[in-house]
Amino acid sequence: MGIIVISLALIPRLESGGSQLFKAEVPGLQVQRLKPRIRETARALLIIYSVMTLAQTLLLTFAGMDVFDALIHSFGSIATGGFSTRPDSIGSYDSVPIEVITTVFTFAAGVNFSLYYGVFAQKNFGGLFKNQEFKGYAAITVVVIGLLSLTLLKIYPLGEALRHSSFQVVTITTTTGYATTDFNLWPDVSKAILLLLMFVGASTGSTCGSVKVVRWQILSKHAYREVYKFLHPKAVLPIRHDDEVLSEALVAQVLAFTGIYMAFFVLGTFCMLGMGLDMLSAASSVAATLGNVGPGLGLVGPMSSYAVLPALGKLLLTFMMLLGRLEIFSVLVILTPAFWKK
Amino acid sequence: MGIIVISLALIPRLESGGSQLFKAEVPGLQVQRLKPRIRETARALLIIYSVMTLAQTLLLTFAGMDVFDALIHSFGSIATGGFSTRPDSIGSYDSVPIEVITTVFTFAAGVNFSLYYGVFAQKNFGGLFKNQEFKGYAAITVVVIGLLSLTLLKIYPLGEALRHSSFQVVTITTTTGYATTDFNLWPDVSKAILLLLMFVGASTGSTCGSVKVVRWQILSKHAYREVYKFLHPKAVLPIRHDDEVLSEALVAQVLAFTGIYMAFFVLGTFCMLGMGLDMLSAASSVAATLGNVGPGLGLVGPMSSYAVLPALGKLLLTFMMLLGRLEIFSVLVILTPAFWKK
Repeated sequence: MGIIVISLALIPRLESGGSQLFKAEVPGLQVQRLKPRIRETARALLIIYSVMTLAQTLLLTFAGMDVFDALIHSFGSIATGGFSTRPDSIGSYDSVPIEVITTVFTFAAGVNFSLYYGVFAQKNFGGLFKNQEFKGYAAITVVVIGLLSLTLLKIYPLGEALRHSSFQVVTITTTTGYATTDFNLWPDVSKAILLLLMFVGASTGSTCGSVKVVRWQILSKHAYREVYKFLHPKAVLPIRHDDEVLSEALVAQVLAFTGIYMAFFVLGTFCMLGMGLDMLSAASSVAATLGNVGPGLGLVGPMSSYAVLPALGKLLLTFMMLLGRLEIFSVLVILTPAFWKK
Repeated sequence: MGIIVISLALIPRLESGGSQLFKAEVPGLQVQRLKPRIRETARALLIIYSVMTLAQTLLLTFAGMDVFDALIHSFGSIATGGFSTRPDSIGSYDSVPIEVITTVFTFAAGVNFSLYYGVFAQKNFGGLFKNQEFKGYAAITVVVIGLLSLTLLKIYPLGEALRHSSFQVVTITTTTGYATTDFNLWPDVSKAILLLLMFVGASTGSTCGSVKVVRWQILSKHAYREVYKFLHPKAVLPIRHDDEVLSEALVAQVLAFTGIYMAFFVLGTFCMLGMGLDMLSAASSVAATLGNVGPGLGLVGPMSSYAVLPALGKLLLTFMMLLGRLEIFSVLVILTPAFWKK
């Protein structure tokens, strides 16, 4: 909650350095509207956040969870943290209602909270459905659930395939990290879909990690523009997002962010491979920590833990978690000579 | 040879659309000097190319290969094609001199041919060693040979490790695709290094495929610039390459190219996974075809072939080879509605 209030309400008020930082961490542009009254904004966000947590706790209790566990799992959903009191996570309950409730609230926690602020405090209902990142996030979730279910038809009947794929897609896209089944035992194509999802992430202005949907949208628009420019080299084509023209500086930064993110993924994977891990464990351990997801695949699958890794590997993955959580630039800047000058 | 002459000598003379195409395919900038006399340039390049092929043929014959095989393998090296008369490629000869000769000439074939033109026709010896892409290409080759040898010490003595790693690094970086051993049997970390190399490629202005060193250099410079800008948001920092300032349009295109290249890699990998391939075979078959390397890993390793793949998979990989060879944009542009207008 603190992260959301700080990123949505406080940082835009800082001087240019701060707003540059804000742009890097929260490229969603509509949050500008939140600026005027920090105290009111923070209170409204706190209420929305608390109501969501309480609602999920109540529903989980009705569905058969004891109150303490319901509260813990609601904290873990709305903060997209993914902590569970059970070693086999939500799968331990083997309950469809519990899974549906957790899926819905976890999905909701992946939405930009400033859109909820718009809906509940400013009665701006259209804002949610006009928001490009929300539409992209929802579309990715639905399409990937469908594709993943298809790949699971070899091992599950349709109902079970939809049940497990919708839970796992939402929990990984939002970088929450709960699990209802050992997806380590799934076919390669299904595991590859989950690995790819670790790089998607949900919306800015939420507590989710990873690259986030808006960055992928900006990258896609840039790629399309360059193909178009190949044909019309002199065309001037600004990139628009939510009806606003994005500055080229922001586009350049988003491109660099994603490139550096991938570079750290590759570099980290090679370090883990060097420590003797197999390819899938190495790649997924780095993807899952850099994206703050939690469980990976292979050795670090949802039903095992990172305990088996060598100490150096744990240190490296700890650094990856920090790097991902702080959105890379704020960490990298400390490593440039320019930062230490003066 | 035709590809080199066309890309180095003819395309820069075309109108803006053509030079845009040239920029996309040959971002090395020093080739501008080649323009004035196409006929002379083409003749000089043809001589250099023929002398290299003949020299390798002679040396391979001295090393014990019969003349026909020596000629075929020289064609395969200098054109970075990688065709062999033997099913187990250069490994069939199990001869260190043959491997050293092939490694040296294949490495040489990965250098921008306009630099040879500079050295031999214009006596510009410094041009080669001042060229940033050449320096990067040589540095990557040396460093990766060292790292790969280290990972091979578990299974080979030092001499054998260096022998096999230097051959495989050069053959894959230049996207030639010869092999001296079944690197499919190597440890995961060594295989991952080869997989990564498939995305590097050698120099522009050579017959190599894949992304190519100069693009990675421009991407790195862009990434560093954005980290620096995070600290000094108002700094104006043009990207320089070989003492020339690159236009932002070129930088934007290189970023888009690499992103689209990766997108096709991911998309292709999922298609292959959907056909039932394991992750390593799926990913490496797409990386090896998109980069025009040849052999991949897993099912499509250096001692097997693509024959085992389903027909649809072969069609897809054929498209990947075309896409990679034509440097993506020229193919994608045909798929945009704008191309078909008017």
